[in-house]
Amino acid sequence: MAFLEVLLRLGGAAVMPHFREPIPVDDKREGQPGFDPVTVADRDAEKAMRAAIKSRYPEHGIFGEEYGVERGESGLTWVLDPIDGTRSYVAGMLHWGVVAGLYDGERTVLGGVYQPVVDELFTGNGRTAWCESQGRKQELSVRACAGLDEAVLCCTHPDVFAGAADLNAFHAVRERTRLSRYGGDCYLYCLLAMGSIDLCVEASLKPYDIQGIIPVVQGAGGIITTWDGGSPEDGGRIVAAGDPRVHAEALELLAG
Amino acid sequence: MAFLEVLLRLGGAAVMPHFREPIPVDDKREGQPGFDPVTVADRDAEKAMRAAIKSRYPEHGIFGEEYGVERGESGLTWVLDPIDGTRSYVAGMLHWGVVAGLYDGERTVLGGVYQPVVDELFTGNGRTAWCESQGRKQELSVRACAGLDEAVLCCTHPDVFAGAADLNAFHAVRERTRLSRYGGDCYLYCLLAMGSIDLCVEASLKPYDIQGIIPVVQGAGGIITTWDGGSPEDGGRIVAAGDPRVHAEALELLAG
Repeated sequence: MAFLEVLLRLGGAAVMPHFREPIPVDDKREGQPGFDPVTVADRDAEKAMRAAIKSRYPEHGIFGEEYGVERGESGLTWVLDPIDGTRSYVAGMLHWGVVAGLYDGERTVLGGVYQPVVDELFTGNGRTAWCESQGRKQELSVRACAGLDEAVLCCTHPDVFAGAADLNAFHAVRERTRLSRYGGDCYLYCLLAMGSIDLCVEASLKPYDIQGIIPVVQGAGGIITTWDGGSPEDGGRIVAAGDPRVHAEALELLAG
Repeated sequence: MAFLEVLLRLGGAAVMPHFREPIPVDDKREGQPGFDPVTVADRDAEKAMRAAIKSRYPEHGIFGEEYGVERGESGLTWVLDPIDGTRSYVAGMLHWGVVAGLYDGERTVLGGVYQPVVDELFTGNGRTAWCESQGRKQELSVRACAGLDEAVLCCTHPDVFAGAADLNAFHAVRERTRLSRYGGDCYLYCLLAMGSIDLCVEASLKPYDIQGIIPVVQGAGGIITTWDGGSPEDGGRIVAAGDPRVHAEALELLAG
């Protein structure tokens, strides 16, 4: 856990010098529809994090968004998203973060998110979760919410839903909630863990988008699954809630 | 200008103690569709700002979101939105701000936005704009952007577009841009002024949502008008751009 914290802050330190600076933004989807930006900040942060892992735990594997998989011999793999929310990062927004998790082949045993602009370090081990900011560390706890009609729902962007069926299912949930906000990436799950919002519904997530987040949500007492109630480690269509009643209601609408 | 800065920071100081605390959230649209939250934070901030204005400039008028209009004798009116982005504020997000402008009956001559979590104070007088953060003050400048296909577009939420015609016009612009992000309220216009994004397209704005922002956008070299190219002071459907080429392209699609 101490190393995870070092790793996340190292990523943040690599990312910050480029924030809101006029850096080149490359498109990873060259030739395909949409725009999937990557910058020197993503690459520098992942390089710094990989070097730290290799130095401290040479036997561990690494799976990062920008530089792929390096197998290890220990059965443990660090799963890295150097900037989760690069689209928001290049727009100068504040809802993005450095994400890392430690995966044992079945589940993510440790994970966390660092937002360096506001210096918020969210970590969890699946049983407990914390936020450390400005030198003060506090345990995180989701809030109670009796049902969808009282819930605040968040989602990064409606474009995460690949087809009309998924978008319609999302809207069926959204119409039942009290309030919905877009924009957020990994930071949304931190808001859920701190009890500021009640529900996240997303899709098209990659394993490195979600693995570092799972132990934080679960450690704060939340529930995170796929839309059909399965294990979230592989990403895809994800629903996370602070209260099991909200999770159950959302799941029913999303399955329908 | 010095008083405007005091006023914005005063609003921020009133808002921060309630941020991410479990405060009651009232609904201003009771009985109508949607959810328009207001909290003790909005009310405390506007009260503090009104008291400061009455003490320093008793001859000035005040028009605030929560407590309405008080006429003055000077022809100058302070236009206040104690929290622009209350929906994001109650969700614990970071893209909201305290907004204030000084309106002379024809135009907003001074205005600004304060985001207290990150301590960013954006101010402008229509000719120059500044951002002061952590004790460092810098002039703001929009960035060049050759056209819509290279532009980063932001909008608070697709629900701001009241009818299908407005939403379709927005989507016509959005489909031509390089990247779009939702979520932001007043903070989006600050991102535009600092040259991090290129275009904001919104609708259903009230005068107090937009007046404090106009001198910042214009002071940074940007253009802000209604969708038909008119004066933005009354709010409604607003388009703001850093580069006149992007503004012209957007205006053509929005008018169509």
